[in-house]
Amino acid sequence: MKKTILTGIKPTGQVHLGNYIGAIKPALELAKIQEYKQAYFVADYHGLTKIHDAKEFRHLSYGIAATWLALGLDADKTIFYRQSDVPEIFELNWIFSCFASKGLMNRAHAYKSIVDSNKQHNRDVDFGVNMGIYNYPILMTADILMFNTEIVPVGKDQVQHVEIARDIAKNFNNTYGETFGLPKYKIQESTAILPGLDGRKMSKSYNNTIPIFEEPKKLEKLINKIKTDSLPPDAPKDPHTSIIFMLYKEFASPSETQQMKDQYLNGIGWGEAKAELFKVMNRFLEEPREKYNELMASTGTLDNILQEGAEKARGLSIPFLKQIKRKIGVI
Amino acid sequence: MKKTILTGIKPTGQVHLGNYIGAIKPALELAKIQEYKQAYFVADYHGLTKIHDAKEFRHLSYGIAATWLALGLDADKTIFYRQSDVPEIFELNWIFSCFASKGLMNRAHAYKSIVDSNKQHNRDVDFGVNMGIYNYPILMTADILMFNTEIVPVGKDQVQHVEIARDIAKNFNNTYGETFGLPKYKIQESTAILPGLDGRKMSKSYNNTIPIFEEPKKLEKLINKIKTDSLPPDAPKDPHTSIIFMLYKEFASPSETQQMKDQYLNGIGWGEAKAELFKVMNRFLEEPREKYNELMASTGTLDNILQEGAEKARGLSIPFLKQIKRKIGVI
Repeated sequence: MKKTILTGIKPTGQVHLGNYIGAIKPALELAKIQEYKQAYFVADYHGLTKIHDAKEFRHLSYGIAATWLALGLDADKTIFYRQSDVPEIFELNWIFSCFASKGLMNRAHAYKSIVDSNKQHNRDVDFGVNMGIYNYPILMTADILMFNTEIVPVGKDQVQHVEIARDIAKNFNNTYGETFGLPKYKIQESTAILPGLDGRKMSKSYNNTIPIFEEPKKLEKLINKIKTDSLPPDAPKDPHTSIIFMLYKEFASPSETQQMKDQYLNGIGWGEAKAELFKVMNRFLEEPREKYNELMASTGTLDNILQEGAEKARGLSIPFLKQIKRKIGVI
Repeated sequence: MKKTILTGIKPTGQVHLGNYIGAIKPALELAKIQEYKQAYFVADYHGLTKIHDAKEFRHLSYGIAATWLALGLDADKTIFYRQSDVPEIFELNWIFSCFASKGLMNRAHAYKSIVDSNKQHNRDVDFGVNMGIYNYPILMTADILMFNTEIVPVGKDQVQHVEIARDIAKNFNNTYGETFGLPKYKIQESTAILPGLDGRKMSKSYNNTIPIFEEPKKLEKLINKIKTDSLPPDAPKDPHTSIIFMLYKEFASPSETQQMKDQYLNGIGWGEAKAELFKVMNRFLEEPREKYNELMASTGTLDNILQEGAEKARGLSIPFLKQIKRKIGVI
């Protein structure tokens, strides 16, 4: 049986260009590796640890699904499903609870950083922590191990989750014999860190993002907000310190980039540079935006695609869970 | 819709006469209340927090199911199911995780008593605690609220579990509107506390029990171990301080009990008293024991009965979970 590369995406908010360049694009590259089964899922129930508004929850979940499809995920060639459509994951989550020591959860980074912040504010260490947040690594373990996953592409901050999954898998295997392969993490060294409007890394927490599916007019407005210096239009400019140029080269062809470099050295007005940036960005975004809007206007289509994906996923999870239950003595 | 009375039974080990008199018998009495749906379940996945031996796990789970049926549970008139056959419970368990504060779990008695014992032994407070033990009250909440339960018969030590279920239900209702009725506990003041072989309450932890389905010869042997004083056979004896008599009256008819009382006052040898006790106990146990042995020899029959029960249970849990998911925004 083919091993799996698994990528989960939690609905967190509006997807921006930094997400695309840093995470989504490399993840889509992985879909080309033929030796592996490719599984992508909308980790909706992970979002429930924070989002307790039904309308927002639904919108964000659909949004994640539509984003991936709009950006080129091929649902036919991959297993593309919504976590909440695969109930076996939640039964496995309980099973793993019984093989995860509480100490392991106490050491989870995300939980620890809440505890630290509570201590700094002289609050009870568990202030604001619900059990979904605390159990998060166990559900993630179930996500990973349910599908015989060998590789989990992660950001550096998520390495620990894969380590926890390995610990729990080992603990289970030691008790009942070899059942779960041990997953490995693959750190996505995002080759390009996209600068945001202020030049820092584009990130929601800096409030400097360009949402990926913004309408053209708004996109133009955002681009016009990019920080520049006060050099006159015809003064020569350094492309390497210009946010506009750094963004430009991510979306322009090599020859366009070379041309723009020349214009910088010969002097280009910031207004003109921004107009050129808008042009290449919008060229790249136009089609996905249209597809995204179409999908979001027809959630029935999304449901169908996700349902088909769930059937593929359950084709694996149902028989595997049966095996696992037999090992435990539940059947 | 009829409200539910729910009784869960965790596979813990050999069922003894103290369990029967103190818990099983009063629970079976409840089945006669016609205004309620009656749900009884084998809480097998709760047992997974402790039992990590497949053979033992299977045996204990079947054992619980067979015990209830042998003692008169009518699977046709009640909903009698195995927790692990109702996957909706585990999805609801995750949902409730996100509505249970960690502080609530920290205050759970069972967890706190492990922490206390670890402190006394100078160990890490979470030594030996797996996340199944820690999450236990949340799964129990899912067990209770999945079936619109109004009444949960409990021992005094379990009142808190129902209170936790109420807290979580309120939290969910406050967020999404009235969804779960608030369950109430009904303390089973076991009218009879059965004395064990040494006169203390019959309990596994005192190692003084009479297992309910012991073979007659072993049963006789156990009865012969009951502590007595050294009065000679023909000396008058006080029935009220005699363990033998206290056990006898639980299984004998009123007229037999009166007769035995007279014999005590006129003088009866301990050997004879024990023989009489064996007689009435064995008379009561004979039929259930036979039925129990039959069922344990035919686990396929048990599986069928439990499967039918699971279908009834899922007839309720599947549509209700759908409603709940809609409220959250998962569908």
